[in-house]
Amino acid sequence: MTTTVPATGADRLDLAALVAAREPGRPLASPFYTSPAVFDADVAGVLAHTWLFVATEAELREPGDFLTVEVGSWSVIVVRDDDEVVRAFHNVCRHRGARILDERAGSVGNIVCGYHRWTYASDGSLLHAGDQPAGFDKSCFGLRSVHLRVVAGLVFVCLAPEPPTDFDEVAAVVAPYLLPHQLHRTKVAAQVDLVEEANWKLVMENNRECYHCEGGHPELICTFFPTYGYAEDAIPARLRPAHERYLRAEAELERACEERGMPYRAVEDLQDRVSAFRVQREALDGAGESYTLDGRSASRRLLGDLDSPRLGRLSLHTQPNAWFHFLADHAVTFSVLPISADRTLVRTTWLVHEDAEEGVDYDVEHLTHVWRETNEQDSAFCARAQQGVSSPAYLPGPYAASEYQVDAFTSWYLDRTKEHLAR
Amino acid sequence: MTTTVPATGADRLDLAALVAAREPGRPLASPFYTSPAVFDADVAGVLAHTWLFVATEAELREPGDFLTVEVGSWSVIVVRDDDEVVRAFHNVCRHRGARILDERAGSVGNIVCGYHRWTYASDGSLLHAGDQPAGFDKSCFGLRSVHLRVVAGLVFVCLAPEPPTDFDEVAAVVAPYLLPHQLHRTKVAAQVDLVEEANWKLVMENNRECYHCEGGHPELICTFFPTYGYAEDAIPARLRPAHERYLRAEAELERACEERGMPYRAVEDLQDRVSAFRVQREALDGAGESYTLDGRSASRRLLGDLDSPRLGRLSLHTQPNAWFHFLADHAVTFSVLPISADRTLVRTTWLVHEDAEEGVDYDVEHLTHVWRETNEQDSAFCARAQQGVSSPAYLPGPYAASEYQVDAFTSWYLDRTKEHLAR
Amino acid sequence: MTTTVPATGADRLDLAALVAAREPGRPLASPFYTSPAVFDADVAGVLAHTWLFVATEAELREPGDFLTVEVGSWSVIVVRDDDEVVRAFHNVCRHRGARILDERAGSVGNIVCGYHRWTYASDGSLLHAGDQPAGFDKSCFGLRSVHLRVVAGLVFVCLAPEPPTDFDEVAAVVAPYLLPHQLHRTKVAAQVDLVEEANWKLVMENNRECYHCEGGHPELICTFFPTYGYAEDAIPARLRPAHERYLRAEAELERACEERGMPYRAVEDLQDRVSAFRVQREALDGAGESYTLDGRSASRRLLGDLDSPRLGRLSLHTQPNAWFHFLADHAVTFSVLPISADRTLVRTTWLVHEDAEEGVDYDVEHLTHVWRETNEQDSAFCARAQQGVSSPAYLPGPYAASEYQVDAFTSWYLDRTKEHLAR
Repeated sequence: MTTTVPATGADRLDLAALVAAREPGRPLASPFYTSPAVFDADVAGVLAHTWLFVATEAELREPGDFLTVEVGSWSVIVVRDDDEVVRAFHNVCRHRGARILDERAGSVGNIVCGYHRWTYASDGSLLHAGDQPAGFDKSCFGLRSVHLRVVAGLVFVCLAPEPPTDFDEVAAVVAPYLLPHQLHRTKVAAQVDLVEEANWKLVMENNRECYHCEGGHPELICTFFPTYGYAEDAIPARLRPAHERYLRAEAELERACEERGMPYRAVEDLQDRVSAFRVQREALDGAGESYTLDGRSASRRLLGDLDSPRLGRLSLHTQPNAWFHFLADHAVTFSVLPISADRTLVRTTWLVHEDAEEGVDYDVEHLTHVWRETNEQDSAFCARAQQGVSSPAYLPGPYAASEYQVDAFTSWYLDRTKEHLAR
Repeated sequence: MTTTVPATGADRLDLAALVAAREPGRPLASPFYTSPAVFDADVAGVLAHTWLFVATEAELREPGDFLTVEVGSWSVIVVRDDDEVVRAFHNVCRHRGARILDERAGSVGNIVCGYHRWTYASDGSLLHAGDQPAGFDKSCFGLRSVHLRVVAGLVFVCLAPEPPTDFDEVAAVVAPYLLPHQLHRTKVAAQVDLVEEANWKLVMENNRECYHCEGGHPELICTFFPTYGYAEDAIPARLRPAHERYLRAEAELERACEERGMPYRAVEDLQDRVSAFRVQREALDGAGESYTLDGRSASRRLLGDLDSPRLGRLSLHTQPNAWFHFLADHAVTFSVLPISADRTLVRTTWLVHEDAEEGVDYDVEHLTHVWRETNEQDSAFCARAQQGVSSPAYLPGPYAASEYQVDAFTSWYLDRTKEHLAR
Repeated sequence: MTTTVPATGADRLDLAALVAAREPGRPLASPFYTSPAVFDADVAGVLAHTWLFVATEAELREPGDFLTVEVGSWSVIVVRDDDEVVRAFHNVCRHRGARILDERAGSVGNIVCGYHRWTYASDGSLLHAGDQPAGFDKSCFGLRSVHLRVVAGLVFVCLAPEPPTDFDEVAAVVAPYLLPHQLHRTKVAAQVDLVEEANWKLVMENNRECYHCEGGHPELICTFFPTYGYAEDAIPARLRPAHERYLRAEAELERACEERGMPYRAVEDLQDRVSAFRVQREALDGAGESYTLDGRSASRRLLGDLDSPRLGRLSLHTQPNAWFHFLADHAVTFSVLPISADRTLVRTTWLVHEDAEEGVDYDVEHLTHVWRETNEQDSAFCARAQQGVSSPAYLPGPYAASEYQVDAFTSWYLDRTKEHLAR
């Protein structure tokens, strides 16, 4: 006879048993998406031990420019210091722990805690603390730093004391794809924060397949071939015409890339390394230039020194929390920032050339239309997935072949969790 | 010295000890009403293992008509299939678990998950799933069914694999009382969802006594004799005139029933069986016809083939979650759907003859007035009970004699919990 | 290898270990401010076993006047009974536990539970309960009383069966300071409830230092010397002029008090007794009369029989939950009422002479301006502290010398927690 009632699933879970019980080729069991305990393990054990994409250099153009980002109950300041170095610190005063900066972004001289005026330089060192005894050693009370890397204008942080060591290899592979877009010469045209009512893994999994695109994203599939993820021989008959267009467009794109010495082939390492990623330049449907309903450019000023608008989409995915699309005329970055077991912030940022003029070269509404709509549609899908997997009747079903990247994400996640349990 | 702090009461409770500690003739201890852990045990162990009233056939008149209902984190689809059979399924896609239907009610051809277009027939079988390998066996991925019974137009479901076996006996007793009202020939005149800030058991307990009616329900006691539940010799002096009227009205009602061959005597089995119930036709005060301020009918078109408006109220109570009143001119059903330890949805549905015309035969405002007011009053009572029993100073006090049905409910609930603990 | 995941920090904490691990001279560790389990221990073990300030007699002027106050899930009625005695009771009906009074304040004859009309006298005795059997003993079902003490017009309650015994000693010390202000002859000019997004201890700690005043409270430091809490030799150079003014004002105040036989010297016992407190009359900056921007009185009618507006501020602090300022023209009381681990109600009450006429002798906006602004500023500070200490990166830093009263509060709190663990 059982006499003790386990709680809401939030108290104690045998996470190792849950990990071991996962059936390959199927989604995770319910507690992975619903349990606050698993969420805490995700934040402390997976998200804190991997490189998180949090910002672009375009958001930090001048010394003193900063932004703050939250991951679970962590809060991090990313700031360009007086020597123009981008740095990250925990957003916690070393005195009594107050959150120091609570704006999402802004510009500072020194970093001053508003509570008792403890004052830090933009390199994190403590400059001033009032009413301290003679022996007080300011050098012991600088802001706690967070590991940070910039890759071709993308800013990643790692919360763990010892970040994964494979990130340089990944950066070396990815950077040549990004360099033609010259992100350091871009500016933010728009940024949208969307809070989705779903676990962060459902948000990532949703992004890893286009099995739902044909019926689910009417705007996106104007230019995003809905055959994404399908094996050649598994493409449904109704998608064959789209695939034919895709093949022709791909051939043209390859020629354009070869002529310009731009890498484009897929490199995919989604499961066997900590800093898992996928990068590929692919053709776009329609006019083939950009994410608009007709496929034409949304900004007249192309990025960097690009000489053609028809360079497709350079798509990058980095685990655990980001995806990116770089086009000839603009770039879009997506950062997934978990809030709680069933809520996730998705921050979308549109970048255009720093010299592009709003109202002249681009219209914000037009530039952002497709992905604002697509994000809202995905948010609704994820919310319904969250509701459904919360039911005791939920049984993980089989992934379709075109969902193999979802499977790769899930397996990668479980490997990270195993590492966490072994720490 | 205690060195470990138990949590908010939500983590681990010795439920068996709590059950054993209950003092007969008094309400339950605080954790039964406030603990998320007990709530989870209630849903999984009590509500899932009993027959829940969730709808009437009047809400499912045509093939494809469906409704959804939530009990804790369960979500269930009830649908009339193409062969006109009413069925119930878990509202969870067999692919990646998305909630399939999120409207409260509607009409469908097939049941299509909006996420990846998995398509089920209205009998639950999987008709189509895209991009599956050759060996994919659709017959393994139909919607998971939920047990369902229809009793004289009332729809009950049971979430457990093996429902209680005594339901047929109860149906056999109850159906003859209901048949004259011919619920299959009714339509929904109004439906109101009220979220009460109270544990579901407080909502049920509140319904099981009219000790609070005299002071608490000014509209209801125009026609509902406030002596409900009182033993003959315990009726307070101030209620004696009401009781005299009640006795005269009862005598008249008995004659009317005898003439028509309609059963009316109380059958009460509230504690000794799983599918506990109480049924009785009783007289109404005032004009004696219906739940209106003057007691006159609210719909000119009587239900079924009834030939008199003065047939009192046929009142039915089914445990764990419903009560009903069937009158000559309309019926009202109440379904209690727990949301969390301290929130409960009460769904009230008013039914009239399918041929009754709104604005001609009945006015919705007039038809629903008494029970809308009564529900709001009860909601306030239950919220205050929830607040009070949450105090560490709460001590369960003695039930009044007229609360014997509350006691029966509480004892029945504890028996179900014991069964759960022994499973 | 760890295979079990601890929950959100809310499930089980080794509180004794947390207490033992505290480093002297530094704030508490994160769980003390964020854990629901510690919050429950705080309410049950610290707040319930100390004297809580909850009201002033000015709020209970006539027999039948009552107010209700909530501490965690406790709810207490404070009422002046028919014999003019102020009493406190648990706000829980002895029948089925309903909360009896849900207004914040009002006036009653008897105390009647609205649910089933159980009726209690204002002394708590049960007068009437309907439908009870012959042997029902009303004397067993009076309202459960709560210990209550009135000190010079201030009302304190203690929820524990055996309150701390040192309160009379404290009352004997404190009362002579308060008596000249004759609180029993005051009325409530304004009362503001502010819900702060912070743990109750952060709210108390914030109040125990003025290290944050100079930069944080522009209105308050018009009259409140920002040198509060600083040791003579630690006063920063920039505060020296303020300190000089303070010394002059103090000398003048001492003379005024000596002439009138009013006690003014600091008595501070913040750590070594359960009913810890601090009392002192101190000079005000500016015109030196009251908490206004120019330091002049806000009410023309002075309290009691005071003959001068320049009597500084009599400041009282009582642990665990209150602080007070008594001026010649008005008094302000602050009551800290914990709601949950991260939410706290701060109730501020402004009292003026009972004969002062609003609009003639005082203007409410003017009277309350400084402390309304100061409370809002403190609320923002506490919310940022709550956010910051929730980060896993939070490390308690060193208190400044002028934060010695914060340290005293923290140490006192830990002593109470140790007593709780030993109970």
